[in-house]
Amino acid sequence: MITSGEIRRLFSKYDKSRLTISTICSHSALQIFHGAKWLKFKTLGVTTPDRRFVYEAFPLAKPDIFIEVREFKDILSKDVQERLVEENCVIIPHGSFVEYIGAANILNRLFVPMFGNRMVLLWESDRSKQREWFREAGLKTPREFKNPSEVDCKVFVKYPGAKGGTGYFIADSAEELEEKIKRAMEKRLIKSVEEASIQEFVPGVRYYFHFFYSLMLDVGFRVTKGRLELLGMDKRIEPIDEAYRGLPNVPEEFFDYTVTGNQPLILRESFLKDCLDMGARVVLASQRLFPPGIVGPFCLETIYHPSRGFTVFEVSARIVAGTNLYPQGSPYTAYLFNEPMSTGKRIALELKKALESNRLEEILY
Amino acid sequence: MITSGEIRRLFSKYDKSRLTISTICSHSALQIFHGAKWLKFKTLGVTTPDRRFVYEAFPLAKPDIFIEVREFKDILSKDVQERLVEENCVIIPHGSFVEYIGAANILNRLFVPMFGNRMVLLWESDRSKQREWFREAGLKTPREFKNPSEVDCKVFVKYPGAKGGTGYFIADSAEELEEKIKRAMEKRLIKSVEEASIQEFVPGVRYYFHFFYSLMLDVGFRVTKGRLELLGMDKRIEPIDEAYRGLPNVPEEFFDYTVTGNQPLILRESFLKDCLDMGARVVLASQRLFPPGIVGPFCLETIYHPSRGFTVFEVSARIVAGTNLYPQGSPYTAYLFNEPMSTGKRIALELKKALESNRLEEILY
Amino acid sequence: MITSGEIRRLFSKYDKSRLTISTICSHSALQIFHGAKWLKFKTLGVTTPDRRFVYEAFPLAKPDIFIEVREFKDILSKDVQERLVEENCVIIPHGSFVEYIGAANILNRLFVPMFGNRMVLLWESDRSKQREWFREAGLKTPREFKNPSEVDCKVFVKYPGAKGGTGYFIADSAEELEEKIKRAMEKRLIKSVEEASIQEFVPGVRYYFHFFYSLMLDVGFRVTKGRLELLGMDKRIEPIDEAYRGLPNVPEEFFDYTVTGNQPLILRESFLKDCLDMGARVVLASQRLFPPGIVGPFCLETIYHPSRGFTVFEVSARIVAGTNLYPQGSPYTAYLFNEPMSTGKRIALELKKALESNRLEEILY
Repeated sequence: MITSGEIRRLFSKYDKSRLTISTICSHSALQIFHGAKWLKFKTLGVTTPDRRFVYEAFPLAKPDIFIEVREFKDILSKDVQERLVEENCVIIPHGSFVEYIGAANILNRLFVPMFGNRMVLLWESDRSKQREWFREAGLKTPREFKNPSEVDCKVFVKYPGAKGGTGYFIADSAEELEEKIKRAMEKRLIKSVEEASIQEFVPGVRYYFHFFYSLMLDVGFRVTKGRLELLGMDKRIEPIDEAYRGLPNVPEEFFDYTVTGNQPLILRESFLKDCLDMGARVVLASQRLFPPGIVGPFCLETIYHPSRGFTVFEVSARIVAGTNLYPQGSPYTAYLFNEPMSTGKRIALELKKALESNRLEEILY
Repeated sequence: MITSGEIRRLFSKYDKSRLTISTICSHSALQIFHGAKWLKFKTLGVTTPDRRFVYEAFPLAKPDIFIEVREFKDILSKDVQERLVEENCVIIPHGSFVEYIGAANILNRLFVPMFGNRMVLLWESDRSKQREWFREAGLKTPREFKNPSEVDCKVFVKYPGAKGGTGYFIADSAEELEEKIKRAMEKRLIKSVEEASIQEFVPGVRYYFHFFYSLMLDVGFRVTKGRLELLGMDKRIEPIDEAYRGLPNVPEEFFDYTVTGNQPLILRESFLKDCLDMGARVVLASQRLFPPGIVGPFCLETIYHPSRGFTVFEVSARIVAGTNLYPQGSPYTAYLFNEPMSTGKRIALELKKALESNRLEEILY
Repeated sequence: MITSGEIRRLFSKYDKSRLTISTICSHSALQIFHGAKWLKFKTLGVTTPDRRFVYEAFPLAKPDIFIEVREFKDILSKDVQERLVEENCVIIPHGSFVEYIGAANILNRLFVPMFGNRMVLLWESDRSKQREWFREAGLKTPREFKNPSEVDCKVFVKYPGAKGGTGYFIADSAEELEEKIKRAMEKRLIKSVEEASIQEFVPGVRYYFHFFYSLMLDVGFRVTKGRLELLGMDKRIEPIDEAYRGLPNVPEEFFDYTVTGNQPLILRESFLKDCLDMGARVVLASQRLFPPGIVGPFCLETIYHPSRGFTVFEVSARIVAGTNLYPQGSPYTAYLFNEPMSTGKRIALELKKALESNRLEEILY
């Protein structure tokens, strides 16, 4: 594993006056570049040839430099990494970045400085470690079942290979579940029952909270040495979200959970207490489990029901795509900042403040 | 009942140069404080200890002064009220304010000046008086049934004790309704059939319109001596709104109507005619029923269907939580004001204009 | 048909320094006037008497001049048209404009200059020509069935007279379809099977993309001599979108597809590639089919499904009502312009740039 010491040594040779904000051209890169350019950072996008035109089509979000690669994974090549270092790049990881490059590759092979604490990848990409993190944080999570025969409620099932939501399914009973798993094994979607993640189906309203844990600004909810800011929230839109349009005989294709986009929403104000409390608990637990813990943006994926409160089903320890709703700020940043503030711009602002106070090492790894 | 004369007498002793905008820390208080601070008013929040941190977490919406109370109802205590008067406070009522303090308590025991006309509480908190108001305004409302046996359509039923939407239910026939009411009586949820409100279930799209009736600004739709502004609209999000995700066997818990948050939307432009017309009718009727009628923000809760037009099912005669979507203004305020305008800021602006023209007495009680 | 030569001849007599932006008071007129006023154009609204108050209720979107007509079609009268010419008016067509006036009337009788290329009306208002356009563009469209007996999937059926979505329906099989068509013929909703449009029901998430094809600004995705800008997107709200609230026995009235309003949303960033590509193809095909092709705003109405990609089911070659969500700009205009930019303002900006460079003839007809 590449240590934080190695990153710091390399970073010490950077020309900080030419710091360049960089990411791969996908997911939330428009927002990241837009925020960085707003704060006068140089920007560099690593792109596949077919996507480049998208980033050229939005001039205020177009990176100053493009590096073209055949596939995103090629960012790991010595050539590309050395070029990134030469350009004094800090990489901003996002959801697709981790998905395309792979957590292990980032930990073991990416020697370019990244914004945030890359140790989080160990805790987030492994389902059982993520559950340990939630337990440490004292959060309510859905019940999990090892054995289909134990199932005594409606369940939501994910296969490990199920890309982006296709292949997830619901079962209403142990019998239905066993039948569906049997069929999946016949179709070789899974090899054994153990591979399937079987969770209690939690009814309620989905809220995806966009947090930012800052060590540089004095805004938001004090949590140990930093501040927790609630930058926004969203609801994801999946084919299942249009299922009612197929009533009464809903076509099977609607039962698909691929995220296709996002919608804005706000939370009942009296629930903000729980929302901020959950965010703070996740930060505190992260500081105990993998110091210095979370740095920068993260997202809690929750479902709210009046009789259950919030159930947390996932954490994303980086900028999430739902923040793309708010390139000019959200209903919550209005109460935090006197200027438009996206999560992309917030990242750039954190880097700028750290740069000005010579504390960049605290927020890179 | 505390008369408007008493309020005016007390208010005449206020130091108007130190007027302070105050409310209890819940519902839309962030927006109210944010708007007030924007216009340079002093702000004061009455909070329970456990909520205070939320209002400290958003610096631009943090009140200048906190008063901590054990429970919100303690705002009625002589101590707290005298402190509010001492600080030259005007209270901005919101949905939770009325719910926590109680309409009767506000009318009989709250001697601090409130923004708006508190007489509206008599007409809004009593279901039959609210219907009288709608009749006077000539608005279409859902059919109501006294006796379950009269029911000849799908109905929506509310129990009086049903807090925030839990306990509301649908019945498809007189038989189903009678069965459900029988069960509710056995469970002692209600004592008699009379307690249940039985309304025709109205199919269509929900629109919650945010109006502001102003006596101070010359913007919006002229209605008698004032102007009616459409500041925005929203759709509420309740667990029922995710029910389709449980298809085909929807878990019972989804049939819950607790408001958990809000989503933005806009109305087909040709329907604005009806929307403004309904708002104007509600204002005009209020002026006849309880002069001077509605002052400031109110919300009409409607359902639109092409073959029925708009059905109105409730009025909230104060700022509603859906306005929290728009701390920087809505798609409709863009056509009204040359600056970002939330309902919270709009309230502060009305107070400021009244202060400048020495007409505060007209909009307080 | 009124030729572009005739329009140009008439336009050559205009006093360009007094150019007036004009439309009928419906659909997106508030946005159009608001954008025009922002850029200091004079504005003129043609209105029926009952709607005028709506446009007076929003001062920043109120046209400088009103012309009252008994019904919108009266805009075709010699009197009104001559008055529009006298006032140096350019008409901005919108959805209701075409619906109320009629495509043939616009082509044959409207001699006032219109923004855009009115030839598009020939290709858009005729279902089979629109399909030819999509074929030319290489877009995926839903399968169509001539004969109900050929139907082998869930289908979506529209009657030609079905106004605004009422009367559209779903059928799950050839048998159900034949039964429903038989009933429609008995009720004289249609005369023959041929009148019904029978399309494959496409499951997935609806995205309505708001494009602008510009000849004047150097922003966006280069397509031949112009640039394609993605200004935003929306989802329409129809009674069917609340159908789940009637579960389990959904009342028939929910199966109505009248557009009542719109909700904002964003698209997964990696899908922008396909989105821009589709927009470019539609522009390129339009340039081949009816030169100079599309000019200004247009909308592609799509459904996305992971296993099908985007299916396009309609093009609107003008400003669509969903743009009313963004009078201050959308999450996408944030990456294009350093100022708030609605589609209405974008139209005015295109006219302003053309005026300044003396190229108005290129974008009028």
